[in-house]
Amino acid sequence: MTTLVTGIAELTTLDPTHPDAEDAMGTIRGAAIVVGDDEQVLWVGRTINSDNGPAADRRVFLDGQAVVPAFVDSHTHLVFAGDRSAEFAARMSGTAYDGGGIASTVAATRAASDDDLRHLLRTRLDEMRAQGTGVVEIKSGYGLDVDNETRLLRLAGEVSDEVTFLGAHVIPPEFRHRRSEYVDLVTGPMLDGARGYATWVDVFCEPHSPHAFDADESRAILEAGRDAGLGIRVHGNQLGPGPGVRLAVELGAASVDHCTHLTAADIETLAGSTTVATLLPGVEFSTRSNYPDARALIDAGVTVALASDCNPGTCYSSSMPFVIALAVREMRLTPDEALRAATAGGAQSLRRSDIGRIVAGSRGGITVLDAPSHLHLSYRAGVPIARRLVLTP
Amino acid sequence: MTTLVTGIAELTTLDPTHPDAEDAMGTIRGAAIVVGDDEQVLWVGRTINSDNGPAADRRVFLDGQAVVPAFVDSHTHLVFAGDRSAEFAARMSGTAYDGGGIASTVAATRAASDDDLRHLLRTRLDEMRAQGTGVVEIKSGYGLDVDNETRLLRLAGEVSDEVTFLGAHVIPPEFRHRRSEYVDLVTGPMLDGARGYATWVDVFCEPHSPHAFDADESRAILEAGRDAGLGIRVHGNQLGPGPGVRLAVELGAASVDHCTHLTAADIETLAGSTTVATLLPGVEFSTRSNYPDARALIDAGVTVALASDCNPGTCYSSSMPFVIALAVREMRLTPDEALRAATAGGAQSLRRSDIGRIVAGSRGGITVLDAPSHLHLSYRAGVPIARRLVLTP
Repeated sequence: MTTLVTGIAELTTLDPTHPDAEDAMGTIRGAAIVVGDDEQVLWVGRTINSDNGPAADRRVFLDGQAVVPAFVDSHTHLVFAGDRSAEFAARMSGTAYDGGGIASTVAATRAASDDDLRHLLRTRLDEMRAQGTGVVEIKSGYGLDVDNETRLLRLAGEVSDEVTFLGAHVIPPEFRHRRSEYVDLVTGPMLDGARGYATWVDVFCEPHSPHAFDADESRAILEAGRDAGLGIRVHGNQLGPGPGVRLAVELGAASVDHCTHLTAADIETLAGSTTVATLLPGVEFSTRSNYPDARALIDAGVTVALASDCNPGTCYSSSMPFVIALAVREMRLTPDEALRAATAGGAQSLRRSDIGRIVAGSRGGITVLDAPSHLHLSYRAGVPIARRLVLTP
Repeated sequence: MTTLVTGIAELTTLDPTHPDAEDAMGTIRGAAIVVGDDEQVLWVGRTINSDNGPAADRRVFLDGQAVVPAFVDSHTHLVFAGDRSAEFAARMSGTAYDGGGIASTVAATRAASDDDLRHLLRTRLDEMRAQGTGVVEIKSGYGLDVDNETRLLRLAGEVSDEVTFLGAHVIPPEFRHRRSEYVDLVTGPMLDGARGYATWVDVFCEPHSPHAFDADESRAILEAGRDAGLGIRVHGNQLGPGPGVRLAVELGAASVDHCTHLTAADIETLAGSTTVATLLPGVEFSTRSNYPDARALIDAGVTVALASDCNPGTCYSSSMPFVIALAVREMRLTPDEALRAATAGGAQSLRRSDIGRIVAGSRGGITVLDAPSHLHLSYRAGVPIARRLVLTP
């Protein structure tokens, strides 16, 4: 089944090499797309009117909307149970609260059945898709024992091809005085359990937190993952300057995420690498922290991605349009830069060339905006103008 | 037709005098509501299960969601044509752009037919309702001549009871050197045209802008409106300290809006008055400005309202959940304070006691959250979790 989609006022392909492209964003005004099975794009181009596109089994007429590649959300922690809204409210209000933090999510997640977690996960994914997101990376990290980490990876693998083993999310309380034993567990039995489910390994490398992993521990975990055939991602430089970026680049990581506290040397290191800097401004919004210096990264030539970090503790937003609006307002990305980072940037952070653009052969979804231009993603902050184009067979 | 709505996990009534209320927000857990015609609330209370509520013609079962009063958006400029997204993008990116600003909106609005404006207005209202908003105040101000101001007020009156005459939005370019003539026009023929459509008069009192009105001009316009039977609202203290707040309180205004730059004396003046301070943080977000000191206002005992200021120039967001999230993150309102300001606060700014709460006799709509608690309005920033409960007859 092929579908010709016409009536697109402004199509952002992110393919400036297309013969009809008008600018570096690969914009085509008055565009049409032919979509085949599995959301694969078969043809993209300008149409004078809806009659001159290529043949297709059926037609869908849009009403002058803008169309963009579905957002690539390359950093999420979607498999969890429990509610931490009271912790959020206390943090925002500056009042004391001890609900256990991440440990409360681990306890609730361990206690939840597979079906409960599956329902929560699918509900969150549906919510993301309704807001225009296509491919979603999903991390484990609320199991923190062999059986539960394996379980979370298995559940994530049911709904995504981009599954990340994050047994090294935090040091569990019971290992607080036996850190090396926990690293042995992560690099041994837990990593064995991840095989077949995970494609990526990740670690919360943060010497500023006693619950996170230092440079040596992080290196041991990432190298073990790499040796098991996994690609490398790193949580780095979130709470203060640290070794995350350097380690990520040294090990050839696809992405180093957060990058809130970078030195000039970190930026230079990233600029000389193929590692993407994935920024998560929803976290700074939801923790009332300062934002990363995105301009310095972009101006140095670093590839930047934007992702939601959707998680129950530091950012329970799943909205990529909100992330784009924050990137424009708070990190001074131009609307073009923000859209690129939320699509092609995310794709590059996952080392995928088949998503994050709208070109012949691409997959990953098409997003329609209730607006004449993608500028409205930040111009209309908070308004749900983006939705995945769903073509039922 | 009466409808019993059950399955409400957490109902925020904003009526702490209700016998089932658990706190100052009037929270009732395990609540039900009976709704009659025209969305009038007939009964509110706790139900042990769905069988013990009062009789009704039919039942609607929610699934453990939180319910709040529909948001009262007490400051909008919804009747306009044209697109200023490129101006927004240039402002955010720090690049030069001269698209004419507000004058371009005036030109596009004057050129639009009644039907075009009606369609744009209704589309925006539908979008607001889909995000949980009930009552919407609508200002004129993009006509700026007698016929067009009257036309915009007439169109606004077709969809809202809260219509505000804002002929004194800016000094039109053609009156730049004849300011007093424009004030005469506003207080004379334009005000005459507003009769029968508007219930409020408003003025952009801002000595820091050559396009706005100084204290004497503002006083003349507001007094003329008052003498014509209109209630008073004021745009004040947005761009710098100024006379707006003092004038509003002196004239007994229902609300002074923006309040971005207040002196200690302004706050004291407001605290000793019945004038509501309406804060519009979407404007500060969309213009990259500093936020008002909401804490100082609340701590001084001033009644604070939150509204969107939805308009094409300085904030094209219609999302009250986004405004609530900004109020919590950027202005340090607690989630309770933010919800109160977005509902009962807005009602007070319109001098309405029948909206903004859920009590027997109230109107103005009921909003359902895809969440167990209203805390999620800011916890889940950017995610469209709020929707108006629509009970079709």
